[in-house]
Amino acid sequence: MSDELLPVLKHLERESAGALERLFDFLRIPSVSADPAHKADVARAADWVCGQLRSAGLNAAVRPTAGHPMVVAKHEGPPGYDGPRLLYYGHYDVQPADPIDLWKSDAFEPVLVDGPCGKRIVARGACDDKGQVMSFIEAFRAWIKTHGTLPCAVTVLLEGEEESGSESLEPFLEQNKDELKADACVVSDTGMWDMQTPAITTSLRGLVYLEVTIHGPNKDLHSGLFGGAVANPINVLASILAQLHDDKRRITLPHFYDDVIEVSPQIRQQWQTMGFDDGEFLGSVGLTESFGEVNRTTIERIWSRPTCDINGIYGGYMGKGAKTVIAAHATAKVSFRLVADQDPHKIITAVKEFVTARLPKDCKAEFTEFGVNKAFHVPDGSIFLAAAQRALARVYSNAPMQIGSGGSIPAVGAIARILGAPALLMGFGLDDDCVHSPNEKFEVGCFEGGQKSHAALLDEIGRMRI
Amino acid sequence: MSDELLPVLKHLERESAGALERLFDFLRIPSVSADPAHKADVARAADWVCGQLRSAGLNAAVRPTAGHPMVVAKHEGPPGYDGPRLLYYGHYDVQPADPIDLWKSDAFEPVLVDGPCGKRIVARGACDDKGQVMSFIEAFRAWIKTHGTLPCAVTVLLEGEEESGSESLEPFLEQNKDELKADACVVSDTGMWDMQTPAITTSLRGLVYLEVTIHGPNKDLHSGLFGGAVANPINVLASILAQLHDDKRRITLPHFYDDVIEVSPQIRQQWQTMGFDDGEFLGSVGLTESFGEVNRTTIERIWSRPTCDINGIYGGYMGKGAKTVIAAHATAKVSFRLVADQDPHKIITAVKEFVTARLPKDCKAEFTEFGVNKAFHVPDGSIFLAAAQRALARVYSNAPMQIGSGGSIPAVGAIARILGAPALLMGFGLDDDCVHSPNEKFEVGCFEGGQKSHAALLDEIGRMRI
Repeated sequence: MSDELLPVLKHLERESAGALERLFDFLRIPSVSADPAHKADVARAADWVCGQLRSAGLNAAVRPTAGHPMVVAKHEGPPGYDGPRLLYYGHYDVQPADPIDLWKSDAFEPVLVDGPCGKRIVARGACDDKGQVMSFIEAFRAWIKTHGTLPCAVTVLLEGEEESGSESLEPFLEQNKDELKADACVVSDTGMWDMQTPAITTSLRGLVYLEVTIHGPNKDLHSGLFGGAVANPINVLASILAQLHDDKRRITLPHFYDDVIEVSPQIRQQWQTMGFDDGEFLGSVGLTESFGEVNRTTIERIWSRPTCDINGIYGGYMGKGAKTVIAAHATAKVSFRLVADQDPHKIITAVKEFVTARLPKDCKAEFTEFGVNKAFHVPDGSIFLAAAQRALARVYSNAPMQIGSGGSIPAVGAIARILGAPALLMGFGLDDDCVHSPNEKFEVGCFEGGQKSHAALLDEIGRMRI
Repeated sequence: MSDELLPVLKHLERESAGALERLFDFLRIPSVSADPAHKADVARAADWVCGQLRSAGLNAAVRPTAGHPMVVAKHEGPPGYDGPRLLYYGHYDVQPADPIDLWKSDAFEPVLVDGPCGKRIVARGACDDKGQVMSFIEAFRAWIKTHGTLPCAVTVLLEGEEESGSESLEPFLEQNKDELKADACVVSDTGMWDMQTPAITTSLRGLVYLEVTIHGPNKDLHSGLFGGAVANPINVLASILAQLHDDKRRITLPHFYDDVIEVSPQIRQQWQTMGFDDGEFLGSVGLTESFGEVNRTTIERIWSRPTCDINGIYGGYMGKGAKTVIAAHATAKVSFRLVADQDPHKIITAVKEFVTARLPKDCKAEFTEFGVNKAFHVPDGSIFLAAAQRALARVYSNAPMQIGSGGSIPAVGAIARILGAPALLMGFGLDDDCVHSPNEKFEVGCFEGGQKSHAALLDEIGRMRI
């Protein structure tokens, strides 16, 4: 362990009660960004966290946007530092507390309760994302208190709209891209494998979401008088949707898999031995067996493979009983989860061509796009990934896992695209933290481990030369 | 022409004004069976038409049911008659007149207006079915006035619930099946090919209608977290529905076509040369091209071939925009139009097996049946069909067509099943009669041709010995 890190970790241990107190203050501010009634609370949370960054020793300011403000803070590292700069991204807003009557304590009056792994902090935002934000702010504070400086250059960007659509994020990044430029972006909004095993999320799936409407006759028809002689838009839709998968449950769009990066044998090996419990994962939703692309494990299917799901479908008679109608049109909402390096725009074009090529002469297809999101993937050999792995290894005895996530984090894509800063997803949440649900919690052990891990990461970056 | 028929036809010609006056009286009674406010009018129509049957010379009575009454009349034919007995089925109730403001004259105040083919009667029920019912009652009257008797035995059954579900029909048939027994059932509720060309409808398609729900996970899932590893009920439903047709657009249920009776080469030849206008039929609903089972004409597809149409489908997110959900279940309403001699119950069993065999392990299928209806088909060589063809040939110079209908007439199936009386569908409506729509009409020429045709049919039956 480097000479510099050890006293920082000691400081964090000594200061743990103070850190908890500060987090509690943060959690008491009901910064619900989706609810206009909480607009002043959101602004108050921005001011509060800006004050924390200043008191820790960073140069910080609250910056207005068309929506809720951004908090931006900077530190240049030690005198003469010319190594990498980390951008820390997080958010100070929280989800609404509803349904309030399911909370065992007030959502905005944090309490410490006993859990199977020690004390836990219960409050809205405890994990998502105030606890995780305070983990790195406490790491900054400890470094500066101990050594008078951070070991590397740091920029902090905290938004107040993550839970309500992040509408101001992209414009703000565009308008301030020189100022926010960084070599990597640390996002602490993800999870650990378990309380003893840290994890770095090295892949997130992307998303393409389309609505497809098939139009046939110019009005609903009687299925007795016309049935058998006209293309039924619902039949046509079902037929085309069914053709999107082959009998190996692979997606049949031409060139769909061309840009898919296969997980490395090492990672696959790690996933196979990490003890993921299929039965528990599926049993929680009433299922017994993973079902998807052949010859893939459940983990591979959700973390590393693209999908096509029909998210909604409707057409014709949907009431009770029978109506012998051939509908004039039918609609499906179809989404594709993408993995690196698939190009969402190529996929959209391929879907449109696929559908259009299969239409009977008298049918037309209408498409509506609902946004695209490229997949995120940390390439093997990333020096920031290696630094994070070293940092976590200095805090935890279990080696850090490289995990994936089937979902998307839109900010990760925007920051990579606009600032050119690849994300490093190092988070300290647990699967049972109830983020977005009543009785959200954050383990005190995770909070403390997170602070130390961020302190260690700063040390690793400070000693890196690129 | 037989000695007996000629004076009957002359009588009908002399009496045409009187027949029109009686039909107008009938049309003035707003016997809307679906509307409880018209209950007394429906009863009045039953009494009125019963009186007409009596005044024509039949033994007639109004018979109560749990719903609107039945009118039953009988005539035994000439003394010592032991030939076939015809059951005339019709209905004295009518559709509601709504939307009333689209009528050019009062729906229940019949008027004669000029049309391109002479005078036409405009009123609700003019064609469906009061004009057609009065056609055969006038034929009875003319025979009895001219010869003192009908030339054959006749039973008449007129219901008052045809436009509102016919709930009392089957129980009444069951309770009175000995009394109503007959050799054939004349139904005058169908159409001619055109005003110069009479037609006998020799096939009606049957129907099987099922609702299929696919159940998967026990709640809606996030498509990012679970997508790719669970069977999506909408994907499963679309895939199974798509498999119901092959690439020749034939239905793939095992043994589905085993009991299908192919149309005879003669009928197919007649259909090919009858001048059915694909462009007009499809153009009216915004289409340009018939689409269905390969190597079949449009007429064949709708009159003689079975179908599978999805009449409705729903599942997952159906609102505006995007929601990344995997639905817990998805539902389709699926119907099959059947042709003779397909067994609806066999088809239902086959559908259930087909769906169930294709379910992933964790999906379940739930089925709801909405009634079945066997197809109707007059076999080649039917002596009643031959009699009707001879009768029509005595009235019209164009040879009668044998046509089909893609829809179903439930009473036809019930009468065949319960009374054992095969239907003879000889009707005098035209495609543009606007039945069930505003400004319903019946051509005076069709009314008069119908009366003469029924008179001729009675003559043919009276001279038939079976």
